[in-house]
Amino acid sequence: MHEYDNYMKRAIALARNGTGNVSPNPRVGAIIVRNSAVIAEGFHAFFGGFHAERAALQSLDDGDARNATLIVNLEPCSHHGKTPPCTQAIIDAGIGRVVYGLLDPNPLVSGRGIRQLKNAGVEVIGPVLSEACMRLNAGFIKSIRTGKPYITLKIAQTLDGRIALPNGQSRWITCAESRKAVHLLRSEHDAVLIGINTALQDDPRLTVRAVPGPSPKRIVLDSALRIPHRLKLIRNHPEKTWIVASENSDKTKQKNLKDLGVHLILVPEKNGFLQVESAWKSLIKQGICSILVEGGRNIFSYFFEINAMDEVHIFIAPKVFGKGIQSIEGLNITDPQKAVCFKKVSWEKSGTDMLFKGENLCLQDLLKKLDASAASVRPTRDDA
Amino acid sequence: MHEYDNYMKRAIALARNGTGNVSPNPRVGAIIVRNSAVIAEGFHAFFGGFHAERAALQSLDDGDARNATLIVNLEPCSHHGKTPPCTQAIIDAGIGRVVYGLLDPNPLVSGRGIRQLKNAGVEVIGPVLSEACMRLNAGFIKSIRTGKPYITLKIAQTLDGRIALPNGQSRWITCAESRKAVHLLRSEHDAVLIGINTALQDDPRLTVRAVPGPSPKRIVLDSALRIPHRLKLIRNHPEKTWIVASENSDKTKQKNLKDLGVHLILVPEKNGFLQVESAWKSLIKQGICSILVEGGRNIFSYFFEINAMDEVHIFIAPKVFGKGIQSIEGLNITDPQKAVCFKKVSWEKSGTDMLFKGENLCLQDLLKKLDASAASVRPTRDDA
Repeated sequence: MHEYDNYMKRAIALARNGTGNVSPNPRVGAIIVRNSAVIAEGFHAFFGGFHAERAALQSLDDGDARNATLIVNLEPCSHHGKTPPCTQAIIDAGIGRVVYGLLDPNPLVSGRGIRQLKNAGVEVIGPVLSEACMRLNAGFIKSIRTGKPYITLKIAQTLDGRIALPNGQSRWITCAESRKAVHLLRSEHDAVLIGINTALQDDPRLTVRAVPGPSPKRIVLDSALRIPHRLKLIRNHPEKTWIVASENSDKTKQKNLKDLGVHLILVPEKNGFLQVESAWKSLIKQGICSILVEGGRNIFSYFFEINAMDEVHIFIAPKVFGKGIQSIEGLNITDPQKAVCFKKVSWEKSGTDMLFKGENLCLQDLLKKLDASAASVRPTRDDA
Repeated sequence: MHEYDNYMKRAIALARNGTGNVSPNPRVGAIIVRNSAVIAEGFHAFFGGFHAERAALQSLDDGDARNATLIVNLEPCSHHGKTPPCTQAIIDAGIGRVVYGLLDPNPLVSGRGIRQLKNAGVEVIGPVLSEACMRLNAGFIKSIRTGKPYITLKIAQTLDGRIALPNGQSRWITCAESRKAVHLLRSEHDAVLIGINTALQDDPRLTVRAVPGPSPKRIVLDSALRIPHRLKLIRNHPEKTWIVASENSDKTKQKNLKDLGVHLILVPEKNGFLQVESAWKSLIKQGICSILVEGGRNIFSYFFEINAMDEVHIFIAPKVFGKGIQSIEGLNITDPQKAVCFKKVSWEKSGTDMLFKGENLCLQDLLKKLDASAASVRPTRDDA
């Protein structure tokens, strides 16, 4: 099946054009090939818009797809959602062969598209490059299977595990190349999440500047709505900012923020801790299926405490602060054998820094667990 | 000169046989080659014993070295010390060519051996593989040029910079391969140094077990002589243990430890801190020119504070403790731009861990600084 690898890579590249605009739908790209030549390309561009397959069919010069091969990174949908089923469009167009990257992760419909195509006499080949296709839509897969967003922690620290000096200063710990890599990470996530302390200390923009790509939405965990309106996250594009606060937070403050165009999600508190997980459902509904958590210490520590991180990226700079704010603080481990470990780890150079990646969620395993309960969290692709 | 690289590597390998027995002399190996064949080998085996050149000459089958080539990692000595000068022995044996790795780092005699050989009509080639030859004798070079031992810090920590849990437990943080690498590091140093807290917490042996090689001497910084006699460092080979204590420590305790065969070095205290640097001269005299510092936190932090480390090796395990004892704590840095950095850094895999190496001392630069004051610290090779 390696003959389709490069076509699939192209489909994945096309799919990335939808980054930031299609969630909670998956990112999908499709190409149509005849006699080894690409004769059409398409991608899912925005939530509610054409699916990739249909976009590709519509971009054909002569409208003729008969006996051509369609390559798409996700199983074509077989049901009426915001748009009619892609399988029917493929069959109607006379496509002779479909190469797919990954079965639909929704267990209620998974495999049904393939079946419809086969029943109509279309040759079906796949999965092709399924690992890459899974990673492309990690947020979609995790959210549709568990009702929770895919969470990546990004930590930038010194060798001695400090993310800031005692005075809170942290600019810059890592090298320019690592900061660029962080912008790339941001552009790959639906939203970036920080705590109110980091918002107050750094007044960050959380945008994507160092690389091409869309800027993510922003989420601030701010239990008591301490956030000042002068911060950049409020002044610039308030409509892209979500604040997760306590149900008990001040009503006037809530109203003032809403009036500015900021999104508010109110959740319960328990022992003084915001029950962040209560916000997942609402965030997913609003198109936030993948979240990059950027700190600070309390936030990182909380995600470690509740074991809610799917991936951890730690950029380690070759320097020592020797005092200051730890990246993670307050876990209650009493045996070295019970340290927090990761299912899969890798180390790679990032400029002069070292980037550690630890993965906790194996998407492959997740897809194997066909539990209907998770599937019931929300209906199929873009029916919502 | 690359034609001599492999011979020089062999000379360096031979020199390593003297590890642990020749300090404060350098490690030196020599081979004699005729028509590309090695006809004799030798090394400096113990302090006061034959120099490598003479050992090689004596190992000749037929005693005939006329017009042969001698390869040695350090410039042959030209002066009467515990043994007569090697240059004369080389000239007397009729050696036709000498290939050396590094000039004698002692500025009072550096280059004199080469000159004597050339004046006697011996062809001289070098330096060859000088970087490797420098690293082989880093302790010798640093101590003869500065009066201080070469200091390497070895830290084994988690991703979040912890060397132990809050309860002091730390076995094991790093993987078996890293622990093996630490044993190799130990065998390459004249001594291993720890603080009294680590001695009490871990009761370590500090020996070399996981790899072949000599076990280093042991140094414990123990201001008030709190060390219990039941510890392995006292029970096993007390003659290999040095304790650096305060001048004001209890006289009876001093006597009891001496009676057990332990070496005591008394130094002043300043603001409650043991003036460790006052012990350097005495330690060098007793053959300790290179020291591997193995912790704990207070010791690491002190060496960072006084900027006394020449090299730092940090083994980072892919796990998180989330609470516990930091590798380094208490530096007073207030600007991220003034973090402790290193002159040369490298990252390399060590089993499942990452090994960070930072170097602070450039031996090459040190050798360039021909300051007579440093040279006067002690006389030439083994005249002491």
